[in-house]
Amino acid sequence: MSVDKCKIHFNPDNLEIIVDRGTNLLSAAIAAGVHISASCNSLGVCGTCKIKIENGSVKSTRTDKLSQEEYDRGIRQACLCQVISDLIVNIPLESRVDRSIRAREKARSSGACATGWKFNPPVKKYLLNLPAASLSDNSNDYFRVMYGLSRTYGVPDWPIDFEVIRKMPAVLRKNNWQVTVTTLAISDRPPYQEHFTHKIIDIEAGDTRGQLYAIAIDVGTTTVSAQLLELNRGQILAEALVLNQQINHGADMLSRIEFSKAGGLKELQTDVVASINTALDILLASAKVRRDSLTYIATAGNTTMQHLLVGLDPQYILSEPYIPVANFIPLIKAYSLGINVPEHVCLFSFPNVSSYLGGDITANIVAAGIQQRKKLSLYIDIGTSGAVVIGNSEWMVSAACTDGPAFEGSGIKNGMVAVNGAIQDVDIDAKLEPTIKTIGDAPPAGICGAGLISLTASLLMSGVIGQNGLFNTDMHSSRIRKGQEGYEYILVKANQSATHQDIVITEKDIDKLIQAKAAIYAACCSLSQSVKVELSDFEQIILAGRFGSILNIEKAITIGLLPDVQRDRFVFVGNGSLSGTRLITFSTELLDDSRKVAHMMTDVELNDGNHYDENYSAALLLPHSDAKAFPSVIEKLKRAG
Amino acid sequence: MSVDKCKIHFNPDNLEIIVDRGTNLLSAAIAAGVHISASCNSLGVCGTCKIKIENGSVKSTRTDKLSQEEYDRGIRQACLCQVISDLIVNIPLESRVDRSIRAREKARSSGACATGWKFNPPVKKYLLNLPAASLSDNSNDYFRVMYGLSRTYGVPDWPIDFEVIRKMPAVLRKNNWQVTVTTLAISDRPPYQEHFTHKIIDIEAGDTRGQLYAIAIDVGTTTVSAQLLELNRGQILAEALVLNQQINHGADMLSRIEFSKAGGLKELQTDVVASINTALDILLASAKVRRDSLTYIATAGNTTMQHLLVGLDPQYILSEPYIPVANFIPLIKAYSLGINVPEHVCLFSFPNVSSYLGGDITANIVAAGIQQRKKLSLYIDIGTSGAVVIGNSEWMVSAACTDGPAFEGSGIKNGMVAVNGAIQDVDIDAKLEPTIKTIGDAPPAGICGAGLISLTASLLMSGVIGQNGLFNTDMHSSRIRKGQEGYEYILVKANQSATHQDIVITEKDIDKLIQAKAAIYAACCSLSQSVKVELSDFEQIILAGRFGSILNIEKAITIGLLPDVQRDRFVFVGNGSLSGTRLITFSTELLDDSRKVAHMMTDVELNDGNHYDENYSAALLLPHSDAKAFPSVIEKLKRAG
Repeated sequence: MSVDKCKIHFNPDNLEIIVDRGTNLLSAAIAAGVHISASCNSLGVCGTCKIKIENGSVKSTRTDKLSQEEYDRGIRQACLCQVISDLIVNIPLESRVDRSIRAREKARSSGACATGWKFNPPVKKYLLNLPAASLSDNSNDYFRVMYGLSRTYGVPDWPIDFEVIRKMPAVLRKNNWQVTVTTLAISDRPPYQEHFTHKIIDIEAGDTRGQLYAIAIDVGTTTVSAQLLELNRGQILAEALVLNQQINHGADMLSRIEFSKAGGLKELQTDVVASINTALDILLASAKVRRDSLTYIATAGNTTMQHLLVGLDPQYILSEPYIPVANFIPLIKAYSLGINVPEHVCLFSFPNVSSYLGGDITANIVAAGIQQRKKLSLYIDIGTSGAVVIGNSEWMVSAACTDGPAFEGSGIKNGMVAVNGAIQDVDIDAKLEPTIKTIGDAPPAGICGAGLISLTASLLMSGVIGQNGLFNTDMHSSRIRKGQEGYEYILVKANQSATHQDIVITEKDIDKLIQAKAAIYAACCSLSQSVKVELSDFEQIILAGRFGSILNIEKAITIGLLPDVQRDRFVFVGNGSLSGTRLITFSTELLDDSRKVAHMMTDVELNDGNHYDENYSAALLLPHSDAKAFPSVIEKLKRAG
Repeated sequence: MSVDKCKIHFNPDNLEIIVDRGTNLLSAAIAAGVHISASCNSLGVCGTCKIKIENGSVKSTRTDKLSQEEYDRGIRQACLCQVISDLIVNIPLESRVDRSIRAREKARSSGACATGWKFNPPVKKYLLNLPAASLSDNSNDYFRVMYGLSRTYGVPDWPIDFEVIRKMPAVLRKNNWQVTVTTLAISDRPPYQEHFTHKIIDIEAGDTRGQLYAIAIDVGTTTVSAQLLELNRGQILAEALVLNQQINHGADMLSRIEFSKAGGLKELQTDVVASINTALDILLASAKVRRDSLTYIATAGNTTMQHLLVGLDPQYILSEPYIPVANFIPLIKAYSLGINVPEHVCLFSFPNVSSYLGGDITANIVAAGIQQRKKLSLYIDIGTSGAVVIGNSEWMVSAACTDGPAFEGSGIKNGMVAVNGAIQDVDIDAKLEPTIKTIGDAPPAGICGAGLISLTASLLMSGVIGQNGLFNTDMHSSRIRKGQEGYEYILVKANQSATHQDIVITEKDIDKLIQAKAAIYAACCSLSQSVKVELSDFEQIILAGRFGSILNIEKAITIGLLPDVQRDRFVFVGNGSLSGTRLITFSTELLDDSRKVAHMMTDVELNDGNHYDENYSAALLLPHSDAKAFPSVIEKLKRAG
């Protein structure tokens, strides 16, 4: 064995592979055809890919997903191992659990709220047992197939990809004139005409109806989340989460657009396609599905991500008057973008509404089912680029609001993103001592957006800060001190924190949070006023965004981020962008909805005309300068005070 | 200068080019951007590309297109010259005549008979002067274009090629939001639904309406004929005729299908595409049209040729039950076949009817306008694979008939194809001495199909042969002798022939001709009987096929090839395949007709059911065993006898 090569033997599969030294062990297992559960792909946060090193060495660090006892026994997270020597690896039962079961459970708990839709995927397979060509039945191959479709299924003369015709002579004769025809619901034009048709995209020998798969992808700025879908029964067979490789060219949209403008468009496209290809490899390997059984890809992302994926120049999104190249992107052959799928696989992009309201939001709205209800919904997407939507089955209005990065823990002294170790919830007792909950119950490392909201609400209720967000100088506690940036509250002391530093929240942090929540709340107010609706009129308030289900609703109302209405009206949509792409792949009706939503949406500019500045100023108190708007919070404050 | 390179200086253009030794001089001129008239591309038969070698050497032979005096002065046919040394070449005025004038004259004299059609090409350009994007008018680029099309021209939301969207941001801003949009009438599905729509295929900066060109191509087994069409005024700007390079793999369809079956499909496709690319180079260079102004290609060929061009496996055309892959071929991106045109150029294939009735025949019928008339037409295509069609605007029936290669001069002792030097017409006087006319008035080299018919008719009228085609043994002349294959008539004596051999017609030749003409005539009879029509019922009889206009109608009737009806009912369609592709590029109405014709056509099998054998036997006399069917011929025979 060369010094740069290592042989890995996987048990109990009894499979071997030779790889380069330094190869990731999970990748090696996938390449060897060994099934290991892995939800997060090498981010190390899901802990589902545990394996046991029976013999040989790997380079790996222990995360909180492994106990010391496990670590000592040779258990590792495959995704975090680099192969150092020849190995014998054992895959324990729990890492071999059928993904489809787990994935289905997940799907049940996901927050998608669209209901009552018919399972009717846009991709279909039709089995044809055709009569053999003979002197008395000598129509051409193409006609024979079309006539068979018409006679057997009542399918009219749908358009056909020429490549399908090219395959016909061999395919028809391979399995005694039994073939399976794949069709796709398409709409090549904008939705104004509500025009829907179908296209014949593939033909295969024999009966392949059992192999009917598609991919749903949420193309995020940071990560690409994908699901492998089975389209006969509507199952999620596998999930994958991979980093968007574009991150090498900047973490946010703005820096990517700048890079694209400087000639990097092709590179950015190649990057995100590489990430998608990695996700595909994981999905196919873990579900043991053949690549040539894929028929369709549905994607959603923000407007910039969608431009970069299909290779549209995004530069005018960034410069006045801030316009995309296209909101409706026609179906594209996925392989033409470099995606590693058969030629006939088309890629659908969720329609955008504007530069700042992308397909990801349309997907969220479809997933939430806002377009299905007669009653009004309010949709709030909290993140660096926030968005608010109001609507029902008849109309929709939307507004973008720049609420700043505070909700993502950015710009906050001890802020962090919502990963393991981030403080997500805080209670403060009468002695001003905190009780904290961290994500993954890991040692606290910082405060994520949800934690910031929770902490601020608790500080308000305990009287540490006033409604103006400033510290009450007459409160005394070892937890309160004056730091370099003014007053601060010590949430975790250095000896208890993962960083070995105090974790604090400063007056400045609170001010930033107030500005951010004011921006969101004012957007809700102004948009509601623009359509003459009260915030109490909404049947449901749908919450999207990164921190999703870890948000404490009660505390978000306490600080005045969310309106003070019945708590059961709030719904989390989860990763609505991914759910939306999955749902439109399960239901042609919802696919049609995706176009309707983008079309019916009226984008409202937040400005003086709809009293935005006024609403914003009024929201710069905790919870709000108008006490009547937050009766339950004011009542609680009175009781606390 | 390297020994393998030669420098050529063209006067009066004062242009120079350096080429490999051995390069064809016409190709060199085209590459240098020098305009030389050239109709036949290197076949040497048109004589339009005469140039004068002022200095240097070329390798070339003198054809009958050059007099000895011209040859001695250094005049050569550019297409027949290989460059041997550095050259100074002068292009005389007559070789610089504007091709469009000549081509238009040709077009007038071509036999296309479709009338009354509206000039309305399937490709159109729309100029848009769009408002610049601004904060108050901030729709996306795609919407701006679609809205502009709708507002300015009432164009609905036609589908669009994604690549057009990709070009938009740069193109819109290049010329201050003035753009030209190209659209194409398409029908992606079979014609049963008579569905026609349009697609947006290109967008260009500024006003490019003046550059709107298309290519019409007849893809023949031997040659590829192409025309460059201007689509604003409907002009033919240039013509080119090139050899179909597939000829290296066999002269006829059968050998090409065998080669394809043995794995040569890709090679055959590459060959014909190379021929088309050569034709394109000639067309664009001679008309000085930019390649990126091309928008559309229309092609017609027999079913095998159409399969080979687009890469459909032709093998089942040849084996029972003799079926094509497809009769209707969807629009294909021409560049995907290797044709050297911009990506947005689509290639249209004339629909086939069956394995033996190809798009070339459909094109002929459209060119002849049979589908436009209420009155009945009879269409006769005479060639190795003959075809007969009867129809009007309501219905059409067709039959293929294998009449053998006699009409192409093949299998005949001194037969030849209809090129210069072929005897095309013959009269025989009372002393049994002949008067001949050859093509191009060149020294006689052999007898082509038209000559064979004319000669046989003359032999019959002069009593040399009887109605059974056998020589009258009681006629005596030095022109009649018994050869190795029985009786023969000496048409040209060795000392007067270009071959320095006697040119004769034998009793066997006459027998083959009789069989061939009986096959055609019997097909006409059987097909007519199958639809209960008399041969005298046709308003017009359209003649297609290789020998076209050089056929002597009177003599063709005399031998019983054509029915004995009023002579003014006969019409020649010329190269109807090329005319057809041109006409559908000038008229969307006729484009639609092409699909209607192929759809309404009923293919009739010639067999006992329609008395084919009986009709064939009856036609084995000159003119026919039923004297009543040929009254004028019988009358003439009586007078002659």
